[in-house]
Amino acid sequence: MSRIAVLITDMFEDIEYTKPAEAFREAGHDLVHVGLTAGETVRGKEGTAVTIDRAASEVSVDEFDALFIPGGYSPDKLRAHDAPVEFVRRFAESDKPVFIICHAPQILITAQVLKGRKITGWKSIVQDVRNAGAEYINQEVVIDGNLVSSRKPEDIPAFIAASLEKLREVAVAVPG
Amino acid sequence: MSRIAVLITDMFEDIEYTKPAEAFREAGHDLVHVGLTAGETVRGKEGTAVTIDRAASEVSVDEFDALFIPGGYSPDKLRAHDAPVEFVRRFAESDKPVFIICHAPQILITAQVLKGRKITGWKSIVQDVRNAGAEYINQEVVIDGNLVSSRKPEDIPAFIAASLEKLREVAVAVPG
Repeated sequence: MSRIAVLITDMFEDIEYTKPAEAFREAGHDLVHVGLTAGETVRGKEGTAVTIDRAASEVSVDEFDALFIPGGYSPDKLRAHDAPVEFVRRFAESDKPVFIICHAPQILITAQVLKGRKITGWKSIVQDVRNAGAEYINQEVVIDGNLVSSRKPEDIPAFIAASLEKLREVAVAVPG
Repeated sequence: MSRIAVLITDMFEDIEYTKPAEAFREAGHDLVHVGLTAGETVRGKEGTAVTIDRAASEVSVDEFDALFIPGGYSPDKLRAHDAPVEFVRRFAESDKPVFIICHAPQILITAQVLKGRKITGWKSIVQDVRNAGAEYINQEVVIDGNLVSSRKPEDIPAFIAASLEKLREVAVAVPG
Protein backbone atom coordinates (compact mmCIF):
# COMPACT_ATOMS: atom_id res chain seq x y z
CA MET A 1 0.00 0.00 0.00
CA SER A 2 1.47 3.30 -1.14
CA ARG A 3 0.93 6.91 -0.12
CA ILE A 4 0.39 8.96 -3.30
CA ALA A 5 0.64 12.75 -3.53
CA VAL A 6 -1.93 14.14 -5.99
CA LEU A 7 -0.71 17.55 -7.19
CA ILE A 8 -3.79 19.51 -8.23
CA THR A 9 -5.51 22.89 -8.44
CA ASP A 10 -8.47 24.48 -10.24
CA MET A 11 -9.38 23.62 -13.85
CA PHE A 12 -8.11 20.05 -13.74
CA GLU A 13 -9.53 17.63 -16.31
CA ASP A 14 -12.14 15.95 -14.12
CA ILE A 15 -11.97 12.41 -15.47
CA GLU A 16 -8.17 12.41 -15.49
CA TYR A 17 -8.40 12.84 -11.73
CA THR A 18 -11.52 10.88 -10.78
CA LYS A 19 -10.83 7.61 -12.65
CA PRO A 20 -7.19 7.09 -11.57
CA ALA A 21 -8.01 8.26 -8.00
CA GLU A 22 -10.81 5.68 -7.78
CA ALA A 23 -8.56 2.92 -9.12
CA PHE A 24 -5.69 3.81 -6.77
CA ARG A 25 -8.04 3.76 -3.75
CA GLU A 26 -9.61 0.46 -4.82
CA ALA A 27 -6.11 -1.04 -4.97
CA GLY A 28 -5.60 0.04 -1.34
CA HIS A 29 -3.44 3.12 -1.85
CA ASP A 30 -3.81 6.37 0.12
CA LEU A 31 -4.18 9.72 -1.67
CA VAL A 32 -3.00 13.04 -0.24
CA HIS A 33 -4.10 16.09 -2.22
CA VAL A 34 -1.28 18.62 -2.49
CA GLY A 35 -2.03 22.10 -3.85
CA LEU A 36 -1.41 25.78 -3.31
CA THR A 37 -3.24 26.22 0.02
CA ALA A 38 -4.24 23.57 2.60
CA GLY A 39 -8.00 23.48 3.23
CA GLU A 40 -9.09 25.14 0.01
CA THR A 41 -11.56 23.45 -2.34
CA VAL A 42 -10.44 23.33 -5.97
CA ARG A 43 -12.69 22.44 -8.90
CA GLY A 44 -12.25 20.61 -12.18
CA LYS A 45 -13.35 22.02 -15.56
CA GLU A 46 -16.64 20.11 -15.12
CA GLY A 47 -17.05 21.07 -11.45
CA THR A 48 -15.61 18.10 -9.53
CA ALA A 49 -14.61 19.38 -6.07
CA VAL A 50 -11.36 18.36 -4.38
CA THR A 51 -10.21 19.53 -0.93
CA ILE A 52 -6.51 20.27 -0.67
CA ASP A 53 -4.95 18.38 2.27
CA ARG A 54 -1.49 19.95 2.20
CA ALA A 55 0.20 22.95 0.64
CA ALA A 56 3.08 22.16 -1.74
CA SER A 57 5.22 24.54 0.31
CA GLU A 58 4.82 22.32 3.43
CA VAL A 59 5.36 18.81 2.08
CA SER A 60 8.46 16.69 1.64
CA VAL A 61 9.07 13.98 -0.94
CA ASP A 62 9.97 11.65 1.98
CA GLU A 63 6.31 11.56 3.04
CA PHE A 64 5.17 9.93 -0.21
CA ASP A 65 5.78 6.84 -2.33
CA ALA A 66 4.53 8.28 -5.63
CA LEU A 67 3.28 11.47 -7.31
CA PHE A 68 0.19 11.72 -9.57
CA ILE A 69 -0.50 14.89 -11.61
CA PRO A 70 -3.85 15.07 -13.47
CA GLY A 71 -4.14 17.21 -16.63
CA GLY A 72 -6.39 20.04 -17.79
CA TYR A 73 -5.25 23.59 -16.98
CA SER A 74 -4.29 22.71 -13.40
CA PRO A 75 -0.60 22.04 -14.29
CA ASP A 76 -0.30 25.44 -16.05
CA LYS A 77 -1.76 27.18 -12.99
CA LEU A 78 0.50 25.29 -10.57
CA ARG A 79 3.68 26.03 -12.49
CA ALA A 80 3.19 29.78 -12.06
CA HIS A 81 4.17 29.17 -8.39
CA ASP A 82 7.58 28.15 -7.04
CA ALA A 83 6.55 25.59 -4.37
CA PRO A 84 4.75 23.06 -6.60
CA VAL A 85 7.51 23.31 -9.22
CA GLU A 86 10.16 22.67 -6.56
CA PHE A 87 8.14 19.71 -5.18
CA VAL A 88 7.93 18.19 -8.66
CA ARG A 89 11.65 18.74 -9.24
CA ARG A 90 12.59 16.94 -6.01
CA PHE A 91 10.09 14.16 -6.71
CA ALA A 92 11.33 13.52 -10.24
CA GLU A 93 14.93 13.41 -8.99
CA SER A 94 14.01 10.96 -6.18
CA ASP A 95 13.32 8.10 -8.62
CA LYS A 96 9.96 7.47 -6.95
CA PRO A 97 7.11 6.90 -9.45
CA VAL A 98 5.61 9.98 -11.15
CA PHE A 99 2.32 9.53 -13.05
CA ILE A 100 1.49 12.31 -15.55
CA ILE A 101 -1.29 12.69 -18.09
CA CYS A 102 -2.38 15.27 -20.69
CA HIS A 103 -0.96 18.74 -19.77
CA ALA A 104 0.86 17.44 -16.65
CA PRO A 105 4.28 17.39 -18.42
CA GLN A 106 4.12 21.21 -18.41
CA ILE A 107 5.07 21.34 -14.74
CA LEU A 108 7.96 18.91 -15.32
CA ILE A 109 9.17 21.21 -18.11
CA THR A 110 9.22 24.17 -15.73
CA ALA A 111 10.98 21.95 -13.15
CA GLN A 112 13.59 21.15 -15.85
CA VAL A 113 13.58 17.40 -15.25
CA LEU A 114 12.69 16.05 -18.71
CA LYS A 115 16.05 16.19 -20.51
CA GLY A 116 16.76 12.81 -22.12
CA ARG A 117 13.47 11.27 -20.93
CA LYS A 118 10.83 9.53 -23.06
CA ILE A 119 7.28 10.69 -22.42
CA THR A 120 3.92 11.33 -24.00
CA GLY A 121 1.29 14.03 -23.33
CA TRP A 122 -1.48 16.12 -24.89
CA LYS A 123 -0.86 17.05 -28.53
CA SER A 124 -0.76 20.83 -27.91
CA ILE A 125 2.43 20.49 -25.84
CA VAL A 126 4.45 18.26 -28.20
CA GLN A 127 6.85 21.04 -29.24
CA ASP A 128 7.32 22.15 -25.60
CA VAL A 129 8.21 18.57 -24.63
CA ARG A 130 10.76 18.28 -27.46
CA ASN A 131 12.24 21.72 -26.70
CA ALA A 132 12.69 20.54 -23.09
CA GLY A 133 15.02 17.81 -24.37
CA ALA A 134 12.60 14.89 -24.05
CA GLU A 135 11.56 12.41 -26.72
CA TYR A 136 7.80 12.64 -27.39
CA ILE A 137 6.25 9.26 -28.16
CA ASN A 138 2.70 9.20 -29.54
CA GLN A 139 1.20 6.19 -27.75
CA GLU A 140 -1.39 5.61 -25.01
CA VAL A 141 1.15 5.07 -22.27
CA VAL A 142 4.92 5.55 -22.11
CA ILE A 143 7.00 4.12 -19.25
CA ASP A 144 10.54 5.44 -18.79
CA GLY A 145 12.07 4.54 -15.45
CA ASN A 146 9.98 6.20 -12.74
CA LEU A 147 7.93 8.24 -15.25
CA VAL A 148 4.56 6.91 -16.47
CA SER A 149 2.79 9.21 -18.97
CA SER A 150 -0.38 9.24 -21.08
CA ARG A 151 -1.93 11.64 -23.61
CA LYS A 152 -5.65 12.12 -22.94
CA PRO A 153 -8.85 10.79 -21.33
CA GLU A 154 -9.10 7.87 -23.80
CA ASP A 155 -5.75 6.59 -22.50
CA ILE A 156 -6.91 6.40 -18.86
CA PRO A 157 -7.33 2.58 -18.66
CA ALA A 158 -3.75 2.02 -19.92
CA PHE A 159 -2.49 4.83 -17.66
CA ILE A 160 -4.10 3.25 -14.60
CA ALA A 161 -2.81 -0.24 -15.42
CA ALA A 162 0.77 0.98 -15.93
CA SER A 163 0.66 3.15 -12.80
CA LEU A 164 -0.64 0.30 -10.60
CA GLU A 165 2.05 -2.02 -12.01
CA LYS A 166 4.73 0.58 -11.21
CA LEU A 167 3.43 0.80 -7.61
CA ARG A 168 3.63 -3.02 -7.32
CA GLU A 169 7.24 -2.99 -8.59
CA VAL A 170 8.19 -0.37 -6.01
CA ALA A 171 6.48 -2.28 -3.20
CA VAL A 172 8.42 -5.45 -4.12
CA ALA A 173 11.74 -3.59 -4.42
CA VAL A 174 11.38 -1.89 -1.03
CA PRO A 175 9.48 -4.23 1.34
CA GLY A 176 7.74 -2.22 4.09
CA MET B 1 -5.89 51.96 -41.58
CA SER B 2 -4.85 48.33 -41.21
CA ARG B 3 -6.66 45.03 -41.50
CA ILE B 4 -5.84 42.96 -38.42
CA ALA B 5 -6.38 39.20 -38.10
CA VAL B 6 -7.44 38.26 -34.54
CA LEU B 7 -6.59 34.60 -33.96
CA ILE B 8 -8.96 33.32 -31.30
CA THR B 9 -11.01 30.42 -29.96
CA ASP B 10 -12.78 29.43 -26.74
CA MET B 11 -11.36 30.25 -23.28
CA PHE B 12 -9.57 33.42 -24.32
CA GLU B 13 -8.77 35.93 -21.55
CA ASP B 14 -11.69 38.31 -22.07
CA ILE B 15 -10.02 41.62 -21.29
CA GLU B 16 -6.92 40.72 -23.33
CA TYR B 17 -9.26 40.62 -26.34
CA THR B 18 -11.85 43.32 -25.56
CA LYS B 19 -9.53 46.20 -24.59
CA PRO B 20 -7.05 45.94 -27.51
CA ALA B 21 -9.90 45.24 -29.96
CA GLU B 22 -11.70 48.39 -28.82
CA ALA B 23 -8.51 50.47 -29.11
CA PHE B 24 -7.68 49.11 -32.58
CA ARG B 25 -11.20 49.90 -33.84
CA GLU B 26 -11.14 53.40 -32.31
CA ALA B 27 -7.89 54.04 -34.19
CA GLY B 28 -9.69 53.13 -37.43
CA HIS B 29 -8.38 49.58 -37.95
CA ASP B 30 -10.50 46.67 -39.17
CA LEU B 31 -10.60 43.38 -37.25
CA VAL B 32 -11.16 39.98 -38.86
CA HIS B 33 -11.68 37.13 -36.38
CA VAL B 34 -9.84 34.00 -37.52
CA GLY B 35 -10.50 30.71 -35.74
CA LEU B 36 -11.15 27.03 -36.27
CA THR B 37 -14.55 27.26 -38.05
CA ALA B 38 -16.14 30.25 -39.83
CA GLY B 39 -19.50 31.26 -38.34
CA GLU B 40 -19.02 29.66 -34.92
CA THR B 41 -19.34 31.69 -31.74
CA VAL B 42 -16.46 31.29 -29.32
CA ARG B 43 -16.46 32.48 -25.71
CA GLY B 44 -13.90 33.92 -23.31
CA LYS B 45 -13.30 32.57 -19.80
CA GLU B 46 -15.75 35.22 -18.50
CA GLY B 47 -18.29 34.65 -21.28
CA THR B 48 -17.47 37.33 -23.89
CA ALA B 49 -18.84 36.08 -27.24
CA VAL B 50 -16.90 36.44 -30.50
CA THR B 51 -18.11 35.28 -33.92
CA ILE B 52 -15.43 33.74 -36.10
CA ASP B 53 -15.33 35.41 -39.54
CA ARG B 54 -12.87 33.10 -41.25
CA ALA B 55 -11.34 29.68 -40.65
CA ALA B 56 -7.55 29.63 -40.28
CA SER B 57 -7.47 26.96 -43.00
CA GLU B 58 -8.99 29.42 -45.54
CA VAL B 59 -7.01 32.60 -44.94
CA SER B 60 -3.78 33.92 -46.40
CA VAL B 61 -1.26 36.25 -44.77
CA ASP B 62 -1.59 38.50 -47.86
CA GLU B 63 -5.10 39.50 -46.76
CA PHE B 64 -3.87 41.14 -43.53
CA ASP B 65 -1.52 43.85 -42.30
CA ALA B 66 -1.06 42.50 -38.77
CA LEU B 67 -1.88 39.57 -36.45
CA PHE B 68 -3.21 39.87 -32.88
CA ILE B 69 -3.40 36.84 -30.57
CA PRO B 70 -5.14 37.28 -27.18
CA GLY B 71 -4.14 35.06 -24.24
CA GLY B 72 -5.99 32.76 -21.85
CA TYR B 73 -6.33 29.10 -22.90
CA SER B 74 -7.28 29.98 -26.48
CA PRO B 75 -3.67 29.72 -27.79
CA ASP B 76 -3.26 26.24 -26.25
CA LYS B 77 -6.51 25.10 -27.88
CA LEU B 78 -5.56 26.57 -31.27
CA ARG B 79 -2.11 24.98 -31.36
CA ALA B 80 -3.60 21.49 -31.18
CA HIS B 81 -4.66 22.11 -34.82
CA ASP B 82 -2.40 22.41 -37.90
CA ALA B 83 -4.11 25.31 -39.73
CA PRO B 84 -3.75 28.04 -37.06
CA VAL B 85 -0.17 26.97 -36.35
CA GLU B 86 0.69 27.18 -40.06
CA PHE B 87 -1.03 30.60 -40.33
CA VAL B 88 1.05 31.90 -37.39
CA ARG B 89 4.25 30.46 -38.89
CA ARG B 90 3.66 32.22 -42.23
CA PHE B 91 2.66 35.44 -40.47
CA ALA B 92 5.74 35.54 -38.23
CA GLU B 93 7.97 34.90 -41.25
CA SER B 94 6.27 37.68 -43.27
CA ASP B 95 7.71 40.44 -41.05
CA LYS B 96 4.23 41.95 -40.66
CA PRO B 97 3.42 42.98 -37.06
CA VAL B 98 2.42 40.23 -34.63
CA PHE B 99 0.89 41.27 -31.27
CA ILE B 100 0.94 38.61 -28.54
CA ILE B 101 -0.02 38.70 -24.87
CA CYS B 102 -0.08 36.26 -21.92
CA HIS B 103 -0.23 32.64 -23.22
CA ALA B 104 -0.14 33.68 -26.91
CA PRO B 105 3.58 32.82 -27.30
CA GLN B 106 2.56 29.15 -26.95
CA ILE B 107 1.32 29.05 -30.54
CA LEU B 108 4.52 30.72 -31.79
CA ILE B 109 6.49 28.02 -29.95
CA THR B 110 4.54 25.30 -31.76
CA ALA B 111 5.09 27.22 -35.03
CA GLN B 112 8.84 27.21 -34.24
CA VAL B 113 9.38 30.90 -35.00
CA LEU B 114 10.86 32.17 -31.71
CA LYS B 115 14.52 31.15 -32.02
CA GLY B 116 16.74 34.16 -31.28
CA ARG B 117 13.79 36.50 -30.61
CA LYS B 118 13.21 38.64 -27.52
CA ILE B 119 9.71 38.36 -26.05
CA THR B 120 7.71 38.40 -22.85
CA GLY B 121 4.60 36.45 -21.81
CA TRP B 122 2.73 34.96 -18.84
CA LYS B 123 5.00 33.64 -16.08
CA SER B 124 3.86 30.01 -16.37
CA ILE B 125 5.41 29.73 -19.87
CA VAL B 126 8.84 31.28 -19.15
CA GLN B 127 10.69 27.96 -19.40
CA ASP B 128 8.84 27.02 -22.61
CA VAL B 129 9.86 30.36 -24.16
CA ARG B 130 13.52 29.85 -23.19
CA ASN B 131 13.51 26.24 -24.38
CA ALA B 132 12.19 27.51 -27.74
CA GLY B 133 15.39 29.54 -28.12
CA ALA B 134 13.94 32.96 -27.28
CA GLU B 135 15.12 35.41 -24.65
CA TYR B 136 12.39 36.01 -22.03
CA ILE B 137 12.33 39.61 -20.79
CA ASN B 138 10.22 40.37 -17.70
CA GLN B 139 8.73 43.77 -18.59
CA GLU B 140 5.29 45.12 -19.53
CA VAL B 141 5.97 45.24 -23.23
CA VAL B 142 8.81 43.92 -25.39
CA ILE B 143 9.28 45.03 -29.00
CA ASP B 144 11.59 42.97 -31.22
CA GLY B 145 11.21 43.72 -34.91
CA ASN B 146 7.67 42.77 -35.92
CA LEU B 147 6.92 41.11 -32.56
CA VAL B 148 5.16 43.08 -29.81
CA SER B 149 4.56 41.08 -26.59
CA SER B 150 3.15 41.63 -23.10
CA ARG B 151 2.71 39.49 -19.98
CA LYS B 152 -0.77 39.93 -18.49
CA PRO B 153 -3.92 42.06 -18.19
CA GLU B 154 -2.12 44.79 -16.18
CA ASP B 155 0.18 45.34 -19.19
CA ILE B 156 -2.69 46.05 -21.62
CA PRO B 157 -2.26 49.87 -21.82
CA ALA B 158 1.45 49.50 -22.75
CA PHE B 159 0.59 46.64 -25.13
CA ILE B 160 -2.01 48.74 -26.92
CA ALA B 161 0.28 51.78 -27.18
CA ALA B 162 3.17 49.74 -28.61
CA SER B 163 0.88 47.88 -31.03
CA LEU B 164 -0.71 51.09 -32.36
CA GLU B 165 2.75 52.62 -32.79
CA LYS B 166 3.89 49.54 -34.75
CA LEU B 167 0.83 49.88 -37.04
CA ARG B 168 1.71 53.55 -37.65
CA GLU B 169 5.31 52.60 -38.55
CA VAL B 170 4.08 50.02 -41.05
CA ALA B 171 1.60 52.47 -42.60
CA VAL B 172 4.40 55.02 -43.12
CA ALA B 173 6.81 52.42 -44.53
CA VAL B 174 4.26 51.08 -47.05
CA PRO B 175 1.99 53.94 -48.15
CA GLY B 176 -1.39 52.62 -49.33
